[in-house]
Amino acid sequence: MELPKPIKDFIQVFSKLPGIGPRQTTRLAFWLLHQKKETQHDFYHAFINLFSKTQICPNCFFISEKDSSKQENQLCKICQDSQRDQSVICVVEKETDLISIENTNKYKGLYHVLGGLISEIDESRKEKLTIKQLLTRIKTNKKVKEIILALNPNSEGNLTTYYIEKAIKTINPNIKITKLGRGLPQGGEVEFADAETLVNALEGRK
Amino acid sequence: MELPKPIKDFIQVFSKLPGIGPRQTTRLAFWLLHQKKETQHDFYHAFINLFSKTQICPNCFFISEKDSSKQENQLCKICQDSQRDQSVICVVEKETDLISIENTNKYKGLYHVLGGLISEIDESRKEKLTIKQLLTRIKTNKKVKEIILALNPNSEGNLTTYYIEKAIKTINPNIKITKLGRGLPQGGEVEFADAETLVNALEGRK
Repeated sequence: MELPKPIKDFIQVFSKLPGIGPRQTTRLAFWLLHQKKETQHDFYHAFINLFSKTQICPNCFFISEKDSSKQENQLCKICQDSQRDQSVICVVEKETDLISIENTNKYKGLYHVLGGLISEIDESRKEKLTIKQLLTRIKTNKKVKEIILALNPNSEGNLTTYYIEKAIKTINPNIKITKLGRGLPQGGEVEFADAETLVNALEGRK
Repeated sequence: MELPKPIKDFIQVFSKLPGIGPRQTTRLAFWLLHQKKETQHDFYHAFINLFSKTQICPNCFFISEKDSSKQENQLCKICQDSQRDQSVICVVEKETDLISIENTNKYKGLYHVLGGLISEIDESRKEKLTIKQLLTRIKTNKKVKEIILALNPNSEGNLTTYYIEKAIKTINPNIKITKLGRGLPQGGEVEFADAETLVNALEGRK
């Protein structure tokens, strides 16, 4: 059946969200329409503020709250925090990776959000990443002693790690470059681990 | 970690959506922030129009596009369509049920959206349903000859069906009341069907 246009448009646009299909979007549309006016306002404001009250940190590229009194983008809270270890930068693919690491409460250094990984197929993707800005940070900030390349252990992650490692070494061969440890995840079982994980666990034994 | 306020608010509000948890909402927030300005505008407009350009049909309670030139709520396309069979009303729980039935292209009568089912636990829910309005439709429109109670085959659906059936019979005992056929779904297997489905399939054999 031909749905009313505002609902059809909503379904079409919101189905683009990752992990949400048209059926779920249809249910969401009708669910939203049945909420109280105040709840609808909450949704509306949360949506508007997400776009209008956020900014990208010009140093680490994490997203932070915009200071409306200032014209230019400001450093995020992590980059502003002088208590944090200025000698380590943890390079992550995306914001949610940063959040997961930050939530461990174990890491007190700085971050750098790449905005994606290098693709073996799509050459153009590399240009959109903040690799150049990372290299500039390393060049201009003499305090930096270690770079942790905390990328996903898959082919794109490995390719990006390899590329960045090479690039950093040509700028400053004295910087320590580390990667996340590999092996069995907490709660994992030796019996069901894939061969590569077991090889990594054996090599990383201590 | 303490997320930037606009993102925290977005996650808090959008996690209320049915079937979407805080982890998925976090990913959605960052995904949205990385879209082009035009895409963000598309989302914004789809969202605003969903609330501002829709209205509830005063006859069947389906949601339809608002005619901005008119002050009062207008009949939806289905209720306006004189080609449709005015003698049958198919009663459904919610809009998405109406859409599924309409998409079969087999039903050409009218609809009535209840807005929920009667709950055994929550007595107050009954008052929010459009049962009274359904009874008024039947009383005032002499063309109506049949009511199809197309509610889900579960305890709340059965309770609602029973209640509405009784109410209609006290108004007009001559109206035909029917329910959706029960039995094995298309592609279902006898071996794995539950006992109640098999009993229904046996009773409904033809």
